[in-house]
Amino acid sequence: MPKPSPAPVLIVGSMALDDLELPCGNFKDVVGGSAVFSAMATSLFAPAQMVGVVGRDFPTKVLDGLRARGVDTEGVEVVEGRTFKWAGRYASNLGSRETLDTQLNVFADFAPKIPETFRQSRFVLLGNIHPALQLEVLSQMQAPAFVAADTMNFWIDGERSALLRVLERIECLIINDEELRQLAEEHNIRRAAAKVLSMGPKRLVVKRGEYGALLFDQGCLCFVPAYPLETELDPTGAGDSFAGALLGYVARAGQTDTTTLRRALVHATTVASFCVEGVGTARLAEVHGDMLGARLSELRALATFEG
Amino acid sequence: MPKPSPAPVLIVGSMALDDLELPCGNFKDVVGGSAVFSAMATSLFAPAQMVGVVGRDFPTKVLDGLRARGVDTEGVEVVEGRTFKWAGRYASNLGSRETLDTQLNVFADFAPKIPETFRQSRFVLLGNIHPALQLEVLSQMQAPAFVAADTMNFWIDGERSALLRVLERIECLIINDEELRQLAEEHNIRRAAAKVLSMGPKRLVVKRGEYGALLFDQGCLCFVPAYPLETELDPTGAGDSFAGALLGYVARAGQTDTTTLRRALVHATTVASFCVEGVGTARLAEVHGDMLGARLSELRALATFEG
Repeated sequence: MPKPSPAPVLIVGSMALDDLELPCGNFKDVVGGSAVFSAMATSLFAPAQMVGVVGRDFPTKVLDGLRARGVDTEGVEVVEGRTFKWAGRYASNLGSRETLDTQLNVFADFAPKIPETFRQSRFVLLGNIHPALQLEVLSQMQAPAFVAADTMNFWIDGERSALLRVLERIECLIINDEELRQLAEEHNIRRAAAKVLSMGPKRLVVKRGEYGALLFDQGCLCFVPAYPLETELDPTGAGDSFAGALLGYVARAGQTDTTTLRRALVHATTVASFCVEGVGTARLAEVHGDMLGARLSELRALATFEG
Repeated sequence: MPKPSPAPVLIVGSMALDDLELPCGNFKDVVGGSAVFSAMATSLFAPAQMVGVVGRDFPTKVLDGLRARGVDTEGVEVVEGRTFKWAGRYASNLGSRETLDTQLNVFADFAPKIPETFRQSRFVLLGNIHPALQLEVLSQMQAPAFVAADTMNFWIDGERSALLRVLERIECLIINDEELRQLAEEHNIRRAAAKVLSMGPKRLVVKRGEYGALLFDQGCLCFVPAYPLETELDPTGAGDSFAGALLGYVARAGQTDTTTLRRALVHATTVASFCVEGVGTARLAEVHGDMLGARLSELRALATFEG
């Protein structure tokens, strides 16, 4: 009997044409946005269903390329106007970045409409958008089994009550160290994690950039390293790639136990490491199974616990 | 045949009575200094031989306590005057610290004199002191087999040429991320490590605080996680404890291959985690084999690679 094809992952998030000032150069209209990075990463493991909005300036060949990777773009609205743009400048060591400009454009009126064919999906990734929109997505889903959400400091500060409602309805929150500390109002990572888990999510994934990630899962704490890169060009989208790969792996496995999640995290840090090696989605687009496998072997060799 | 007793580790460094402003309170005349933390950590694995200087104000019972742990204090000079004091204030999240005052006192004229009985030691830890003094120590040793050295931004900036001479003569450099980047004048960790390894040391250990440590060892890169603490009181001495435990483990093993070093790093991050749980050396003084074993098991459970 052939292996059943993996369940799809519904992904909602931003789609963007970013202007990036990077140590390696300045780039205009770089295809990006959380939904794009996540869907590309998911599609390495499972079909992705994408929900977002772009303007007429968004290259149709990018959507064609996503479809060729197994991304269903039925949920992508193409509307009059310009695509969302984030313009940012990274520090010379890539360790920090500043926003130079944010043009919401067609994203300003984004109200996610989940196509009928997407509403039964069991795996859902709520990218970093307004928590009220994340709730709107959930209200359109029939019986999601594993909902993961990302968020950011902006919503933690400004939309806390909506965010808390999201937290009550998701299985897994995916945020970085600083966001965790901010959300929990507690510096210590373990205590902060316990506090956030008491707000609703059953599992918490803490992204720690080049250091890896932590999984807090019902009393279990797991540590997953990141692959140390020799070439770092652009961290944009690394977190979104991480989340997309995590959901894709889980969907492919069809299981959500701790061991599966732990493996999913290893794959997620590895996919994210590729993302950083190129500008925008350039490197992510090149990744295939053999490359991923080779890097996973390297990561295993360097991170196998000896004690 | 009984197991041979481990070879001793010679440790040279500062001995101090620090004034600490910590989130958990202010503390005066806290026993510290790199040699003290390192010797206490080493003594969990192997005998330590300590070389340093204190004033008459240094509590004799502290030296008694060190001797009771298997630390040979023959190399500790007690001279007229006051002991070295560092006064510092930690940020409320312990993530940064500022120096309020540095009183070199008797440490100003420190010229390490290695007792005859210490000169044959094969394992040597050069704590964070002036690189010219580190060289003086090496000139007094007969045939050291494994010399590890720590340093800091102050010497990297101000005493680069002396430090480069040290690097040519040691087996293992133990520094943190930022010091590595500063020494190599390169932000990327892997490229920075390659550059520093070309300066002389055969192995490089990069401390990454709460994230763990990296070992670069002749083409091999290993990643070692740190135990995530629920109680963090005082990071002072964590790096020195790490280095002391690393050398102690290596001396006990009597081997310096990559696998041994990797295990040594796991023990080192674990001993350092205890250090942070108490003010000064308070918690480190309580650690015994069973506590260490239990925490190592926990660390193994959370860090075992699944991929």
